[in-house]
Order: sequence, then C-alpha cells, then structure tokens
Amino acid sequence: MTVRNLFLLPGDGIGPEAMGEVRKIIAYMNEAKNAGFVTDEGLVGGSAYDAHGVAISEEDMQKALAADAVLFGAVGGPKWDDVPYEVRPEAGLLRLRKDLELFANLRPAICYPALASASSLKPELVDGLDILIIRELTGGVYFGEPKEIIDLGNGQKRGIDTQVYDTYEIERIAGVAFELARTRNNRVCSMEKRNVMKSGVLWNQVVTATHKEKYADVQLEHMLADAGGMQLVRQPKQFDVIVTDNLFGDMLSDVAAMLTGSLGMLPSASLGAPDAKTGKRKALYEPVHGSAPDIAGKGIANPIAMIASFAMCLRYSFGLVADADALEKAIANVLDSGIRTGDIMSAGSRQVGTAEMGDAILAEF
Amino acid sequence: MTVRNLFLLPGDGIGPEAMGEVRKIIAYMNEAKNAGFVTDEGLVGGSAYDAHGVAISEEDMQKALAADAVLFGAVGGPKWDDVPYEVRPEAGLLRLRKDLELFANLRPAICYPALASASSLKPELVDGLDILIIRELTGGVYFGEPKEIIDLGNGQKRGIDTQVYDTYEIERIAGVAFELARTRNNRVCSMEKRNVMKSGVLWNQVVTATHKEKYADVQLEHMLADAGGMQLVRQPKQFDVIVTDNLFGDMLSDVAAMLTGSLGMLPSASLGAPDAKTGKRKALYEPVHGSAPDIAGKGIANPIAMIASFAMCLRYSFGLVADADALEKAIANVLDSGIRTGDIMSAGSRQVGTAEMGDAILAEF
Ligand SMILES: CC(C)[C@H](C(=O)O)[C@@H](O)C(=O)O
Ligand SMILES: CC(C)[C@H](C(=O)O)[C@@H](O)C(=O)O
Repeated sequence: MTVRNLFLLPGDGIGPEAMGEVRKIIAYMNEAKNAGFVTDEGLVGGSAYDAHGVAISEEDMQKALAADAVLFGAVGGPKWDDVPYEVRPEAGLLRLRKDLELFANLRPAICYPALASASSLKPELVDGLDILIIRELTGGVYFGEPKEIIDLGNGQKRGIDTQVYDTYEIERIAGVAFELARTRNNRVCSMEKRNVMKSGVLWNQVVTATHKEKYADVQLEHMLADAGGMQLVRQPKQFDVIVTDNLFGDMLSDVAAMLTGSLGMLPSASLGAPDAKTGKRKALYEPVHGSAPDIAGKGIANPIAMIASFAMCLRYSFGLVADADALEKAIANVLDSGIRTGDIMSAGSRQVGTAEMGDAILAEF
Repeated sequence: MTVRNLFLLPGDGIGPEAMGEVRKIIAYMNEAKNAGFVTDEGLVGGSAYDAHGVAISEEDMQKALAADAVLFGAVGGPKWDDVPYEVRPEAGLLRLRKDLELFANLRPAICYPALASASSLKPELVDGLDILIIRELTGGVYFGEPKEIIDLGNGQKRGIDTQVYDTYEIERIAGVAFELARTRNNRVCSMEKRNVMKSGVLWNQVVTATHKEKYADVQLEHMLADAGGMQLVRQPKQFDVIVTDNLFGDMLSDVAAMLTGSLGMLPSASLGAPDAKTGKRKALYEPVHGSAPDIAGKGIANPIAMIASFAMCLRYSFGLVADADALEKAIANVLDSGIRTGDIMSAGSRQVGTAEMGDAILAEF
C-alpha cells in the first residue's frame, strides 16, 4: 500500500483550528479511499518558541525534511512581538522555506463567484478572476547577505539588506511559470524594476532568454512592478500567470489576494526542485491568511484556505488530481449553498463555525 | 520685486504638452498678480539623450541646482528602450533626486468627487478619499552600493542591489510625515517589512523614537508593507499620512493612485531639507503619470496632473497658499462642470483637448 507522509505544523492563532478540519479530510480519505496518509505533528512559530526557545526545533526541521509534504497553519501574534529577531515566529517559516529549498511559491488569486460582491472592486472586474502568482521564495532581499544593523557611532545606525539573484535562480522560477502557464491560458507576465535595480535587469534578461530557448509557445510580457501593482487594481483579469521575485511577490500577491474578496480563502503551495532520482519535490502548503490572534480559540475561524491548501497538496505532491478537483468543487458548492463563516458572512446566508464549515465541505467531498 | 526662478524640464512624450498649459498659468500670474516668475528650460530623459547622449546634461543639472523649483514633465518611451542602463531616460530623474537631495516625496492620493465612479473600487470606498503618501526618495535600494551584475563564469551572472538606510535618513523623512500630519488629520501610518528586513527593523525603531521625542501628539501606527498594500485596497479611507521607504513607496503610491480613479490627475512634490541659512528647500514637482508615448503630440493629453503639480509648487516652494488653493479649486470646478479630456471621459461629459482643458482651468483660476 502507498504510504504518504504528511508533517503537520499547525502553528499559532487560528492555525490549529483550521488544521483540525484538514485532519478530518485526511482521516476520511484514509478510510474511504485507502489514501495511506501517515501524519506526524510539530511546533512552529510562537508555540515552538514557548516550548523550545526557537521558532522551530531541529527535530521538527528533520521531520519536515523527511516528509512528503508539510502542511503549515499560521504563525505569530502579539504575545511574541518582542522576542529577539532571530527567534521571532516568522523565522520558523523562513527557515523551512530556505532549508527545504522551496523556491517556487504558487499563489492562486481566484474569486469564488459566491463572494464576488465581497471584493472592494466592482464585481464585474473580479467576477471569474483566476490569476496564478508565482513568487520566487528562497532568494532576493529575504536571504541576501549582508543583512545587518551596524552601529556607526554618534547615535547613528545603518540598516542593510541585500537583494541577490543568480541566473539559475531566475531560470528555474521562470521555468515553473512557463510550465504552469501551459496548463492554463498560456500567458506569463514577468514583473521587476529593471529601470532601477540591477537584479531587475538580470531578471528581465534571464526570463527573456529562458522563454526564447524553451517556451517560445507561451505568450510573454514584461511589466515594471509598480505598473504591475496598478494594473492589478485597474484590470486584474488581464493576467494569467505572473512571475516575480520574493519581495515584489510578497506585496503583489497580497494585493491580488485582497482584490478577490476571498482573502480568507486563498491557499498557497511552496515547491522545491524535483529530486534527481525520485522526481519528487519537497513541498509546503499554507493558507495566505495570518494567525488572526483576535479570533483564535473561539471556533469561528474560516478553515477554507487551509482546506484549499490541502487540495493543492493532493494535486502537486501526490498527483491526486481528481481528489483535488473534487475538494475544490466541494468548497465552491458549500459557498454556493449559502453557508458562511463570520468573516465572509453576508445577508441571507447561514453563519456557521469552523467545525461546521469543515463538516459541510467534507459532506460535499 | 520678488524674483522666483523656475527651471522647466518638460521631458518626453506628453511632458511638453502638459507643461505648455502650466506656462499659461505662469504667464497669467506674472501679469495679473505680479508673481515674478522667471523661467528657463532644459532637456531631460530621452530628449536629453538625443541631444547630448546623456539623460541630463551637466549644464541643465547646474540650472536645476540653482533654481528655486524645478517643474518636471515625464521621461521615457519605446524609442529609448535599448539605450545603455547609465543613460536611460529614468537616470535623469534619479540624478536630479539624488543631486538635489530631494529626500521627501509627497504623493497625495485624492479622489476628485466628479471622478469617483472612474475608480475600479466601489465608489463608497473612494469617495472623498484623501491620503498623503510620504516616500523616502534618496535612499534605500535605489541608490545603495553594491549595485551591479557580476559575471560568475559558466554562464552564470549575479544581480545585486543593496538596501541601505541610516538613522538620520529615517529621522528626517519621519519628521516630514509628522509635520504634515499635524496640518491634516494628525495620523501617521509607517510601513516596512521589519519581519524580514533589517532596514525595516531600524526604520521601525527610528520612527518610533522620533515620534516619542518630538511628535507624541500625532497618532502613530505601524503596518507591514504587504499588509499595507492589502489595507489600501480593502479600506483606503482608514489612512491619513503614510510614510515608507523608497521602493515600498514606489509600489504603494502607485496602487493608491490607481485606487482613486484619478491617476492621470495626481501631482507630486519632491523636497529637500531646508537650507541652514535661507530656510529654502530645493524642490521638484512632477505628475505621477508617465510619458504616454502613444498619445504624445496629439494635443489630447490631460494636463491636470502637471497643473496640480504646479499648485504644489506654489504651496511648498513659494508659500503662495491662497493661489495654490485657488488653482486646486479651479481644477475641481472644471471637473464638476463636466469638461473632460479623453482619458477621463464619461457619458454626458464634454470632451476637450489639452489646450482647452488648460484654458478652462485658467478661466476658473
Ligand atoms: C510571514 C512573512 C515572513 C511572510 C513573508 O514576508 O514572506 C508572509 O508575509 C508571506 O507572504 O508568506
Ligand atoms: C521612473 C522611475 C525611476 C520612478 C521610480 O521608480 O521612482 C517612477 O516609477 C516613480 O515612481 O517616480
């Protein structure tokens, strides 16, 4: 029988509650479909800091490295606002990305039709929106050295961060974008600031060359990242796949997510390179929303983004495409039926809690 | 009699046409109000490159340094897409910012009531919107060294940019934000990525300390820049003054500008520090929109952003507050009367060209 190893890192805030609903789906798939999921669980973020004084323990890092896929909830909260920089909750997530070499972050920005009116944009601009943002995740200003604060004396300090991109890093993320575009509408828009940044100049050159060499069948466009932010607001449906660097990707994917009106519902996948022998990619799946400490523990959080992240896991880590499709369809159906958690509640719908939403999706699955 | 030296850099594309309408206002103010404006004119961007092989000549740089204020049109266009990086059109603008030490970029994002429906956001979210974004303009990743592409051999290159901020740079831009907040709704939101960037950690600390020492009467909030982008889309009216670094400011001010639906109409001011002896600040005023090469030379460009930039010049460089108010009011009145250039045309309005729009505003002034 197939064994599929999942390592669960629920994290802080609403992470554990949302993860609870995914556990139900895992149990169901094991029972009804013989899916062979084996789960183990660890601590990350503030909860790891409270237990071990670090944002993720070495033991849990080893487990993450060994698993077929990591499911990640959320990290952070006011309780840990003043812990030292090196062990802040986010450090756990950043270390996972770096050590697992998860260079490709896939962030779909889709607008669930049932929620189009929740967007701050006019409904006709977002209805049916389906963008895939591909964000480089292990390079750029997030990890470049030097990254430090120097004391210059006289009360002056200097904060330094370094944006670094090598040809191979740009090549491989561009490759992911072109490959995925072929499974969609075959269009890629690459965003950088080549008019100001040398890394942007290189980015632009390498994407152009990669396109010419291997993916000339895909339509490629280049846009300055600031203009890209504008165009996302002006006419988001003009985009199919967007590929961009770590920092621009952070900003642009958040803006895109907010446009959909479905922020609380958006999943993400972070993928590594295929292993030379097995062809398997390391992977981590996480909701785009944060830990929402204000509503944690109340049983009212929306588990949809976490469940949709598990659907991406089924698709990208295990090739269970039919199951992924079915789970995504179940989410859409439940929304169509008018069931809502508090964050997406609107007049005429029925408000439910975390567990009830999870159960409704499972029933539809 | 007062002499007020203006140096005009119309630049490329629609820059010259838009500047033409400001010239009419200058002539009128000299004649009717004895304003004493003396103008000189130079080349910048692609037009400077065509004439001198650089994005701005040394002679014009000297004139810009000597003037009381610089009025800047726009630079760039497909004609110069392939000129060397060092002399690309943007280099002229970047050199002006750096050599004039224009560290404070003021970008109002206001929604003209007559144009609220042109926004892609729901009208109730932007109607009456009035945000002032203060962007640091001479530091950060735009100018930090090293900034280069290194050949690593084996077909690999490395693109490097460096984000650098010193305490004094953050202090002075924070000071501008707090001072201006006092003339508005007394609220400042500072944005950075302190969870990922050391320069963000320092930014946060220095803004907090500056606030505590000198501006405790102003309400201060901190937001991560990615969350800030989201909040701009979700609920833009929550903001009064936003202060942020050069690169985040570039992205966030463009998103904010697009939200207003008034993109083609937004001005900006870039200010230096007050001179120790005279108290005067060096300053450059420019529309937020670009050079729009596709419509250049047709007499149809919207001159409002350029005229509104001149209104900022009257206010910030010459203390002519009543004239600035009157000019801004004239713009709003003309829009209320239903006169529109093509870019903001809507059913029931009367479409006019660049000159007619300028004349209408002058008539209302
Ligand atoms: C938590 C934080 C470090 C992270 C990032 O900046 O990458 C988050 O904003 C994200 O987008 O996943
Ligand atoms: C033209 C370009 C160099 C410039 C910038 O990036 O600062 C522009 O986008 C702006 O915002 O003024």
